[in-house]
Amino acid sequence: MQQPDTNIYIYGRNSVQEALQNEATKIEKIFVRDSLHDSQLPDIFNIASQHNIPISHVPGSKLYDLVGSVNDQGVVALMSEANYHDFGEWLDSIDTSEYPAILLLDEIEDSGNFGAILRTAAAAGISAVLVPKHRQAPVNATVYKTSAGTAGRIPIVRAGNLNQAILKLKDEGFWIGGLDMNGNQSLWDLEIDRPLAFVIGNEGSGISQKTLEHCDYQFSIPMENNVESLNASVSAALLCYEWNRKK
Amino acid sequence: MQQPDTNIYIYGRNSVQEALQNEATKIEKIFVRDSLHDSQLPDIFNIASQHNIPISHVPGSKLYDLVGSVNDQGVVALMSEANYHDFGEWLDSIDTSEYPAILLLDEIEDSGNFGAILRTAAAAGISAVLVPKHRQAPVNATVYKTSAGTAGRIPIVRAGNLNQAILKLKDEGFWIGGLDMNGNQSLWDLEIDRPLAFVIGNEGSGISQKTLEHCDYQFSIPMENNVESLNASVSAALLCYEWNRKK
Repeated sequence: MQQPDTNIYIYGRNSVQEALQNEATKIEKIFVRDSLHDSQLPDIFNIASQHNIPISHVPGSKLYDLVGSVNDQGVVALMSEANYHDFGEWLDSIDTSEYPAILLLDEIEDSGNFGAILRTAAAAGISAVLVPKHRQAPVNATVYKTSAGTAGRIPIVRAGNLNQAILKLKDEGFWIGGLDMNGNQSLWDLEIDRPLAFVIGNEGSGISQKTLEHCDYQFSIPMENNVESLNASVSAALLCYEWNRKK
Repeated sequence: MQQPDTNIYIYGRNSVQEALQNEATKIEKIFVRDSLHDSQLPDIFNIASQHNIPISHVPGSKLYDLVGSVNDQGVVALMSEANYHDFGEWLDSIDTSEYPAILLLDEIEDSGNFGAILRTAAAAGISAVLVPKHRQAPVNATVYKTSAGTAGRIPIVRAGNLNQAILKLKDEGFWIGGLDMNGNQSLWDLEIDRPLAFVIGNEGSGISQKTLEHCDYQFSIPMENNVESLNASVSAALLCYEWNRKK
C-alpha cells in the first residue's frame, strides 16, 4: 500500500506545462536544473511568470532528492495536495437529466493504471471518477505523470465507502454497471439513455463480491486465445469509449 | 534504450504458471524460494514435473539477484530467448482470404505498454504483432509480466525495417491504418472487409512521418476536455476492439 503524499511533485516538461496550463493555482513552486537556460523552457517560464509562481534554479541532485530516479527532464513542480471532491457535495451538484456517465474505482492499486484511467476518462467525456478513501492509489506524482497531466481535468470524487455510495447513486437514478469476465451481457449491448456508473475492479481480484451484487448490469468483453482478463486501464478504456461512441 | 536480455526471467505465480501451461518447452529451469513448500505451488510443481523442468530451491536473495526488487511471490522461471517469427516466413504463411488484422508497433519503448498491447491483441483475436528490430522494447520479463503471461499466445514477428515491411504487406493485399490525432477518419468508421495492418506509434512522438505517409487510413479517436492523446496501450486496445466488435 502506498501512503498519500502531502507534497505532490510533478516532473517532466510536458507534465509540468500541462499542470501550469490547467491548474496553475495549485502550483506552489517550480524547480529547474541550474544547467538549463530560460530559453530552453520558454512556455514554462512564461506561464509561471504570469501566475507569479516562483522558480528555483537548483542542482540536478536536488531534483533527485525530490522525485528520485526518474526522467525529470530538468523540471519539477510542487503542487498543493490534490483537491478531492466530497461525494455528498458532488452528488448534490450533478445533473442526471443529461445522462452522465461516471467511473467508480474499486480499489485500483497501481498509480500507473489510475493515471491512465483518469486520462482516458477525461478524453471520453466521463463526468467524474469516484474513488474510495482506503485501499486505493492516491493522486501522486506518478498518477499525474501517467495521466500526461490530464488528472486535473476531471473531478476526482472521494467516498468513504463504495457500496454506500452506490446505494446513493441508485437513489439519484444512476444505473450501475460492472465489467466481469463472467458477465452475462456483452459490452457492445450497452444502452446509454440513462445516468450510468461503471465499476472498475481491482487489478488482481476484480470487483469485490458485494459490489458486484449491487450491479444492475454485469458486462463482459469478448476474449479469444484463452485470455481471461485485460489490464484494468484497458478494460476501463473500452467501457468509456463504448459509452462515448454511442453518445 | 533497453538492450535485449538473452535470459528472460518470468516471476510471480500466475505468470510462471501461464508460461508453463503455454510454453513449457521454452522453460529451462524454475527457481523457488526455499521457505515455500511444494504444496503451496501444486500446479507449478505438477506441470514442471510433467515436462521434466528442473526446480531449484534457493534463498530469497538468489531470486532478488535474478529479477531485482519486484514482487516475485517466491517463484521465478528462466526461459530461453523469445522466438521471434521471421517476417518473410510469416508473410508466406498468412492467409489473407480470412481478412486478418495485425498490429505494427512503430518503436514502442515502454515494456509495460508492449506487454499490455500483446495481451489485448491476443484477447481481441489479432493475428500477429510486428515489431522492428531496432528502437523497440525487447520481449523481456517485464513484458511477460505485464502481458499476464499471454505474450506467448500471439506471434511476435520481427522485421528489419517497418516501412519496407509495410510495402510488402501492401503487395499481399493488406490495407494500412494508423492512429493519429490529426487523422481525418473516425475510428468508428473502420471497415473490416479486407486484410488490415494497424500502426501503433511511439509513446512520445507517435507514428513517424514517413510511416504515416504509407497509411491508407489515418484514424482519430474523438477526445474531449482538450486531451490530445491517449496512452499507447489504450489507443491500441480501442483499435483492436473496434475491429473485434465489427468482426
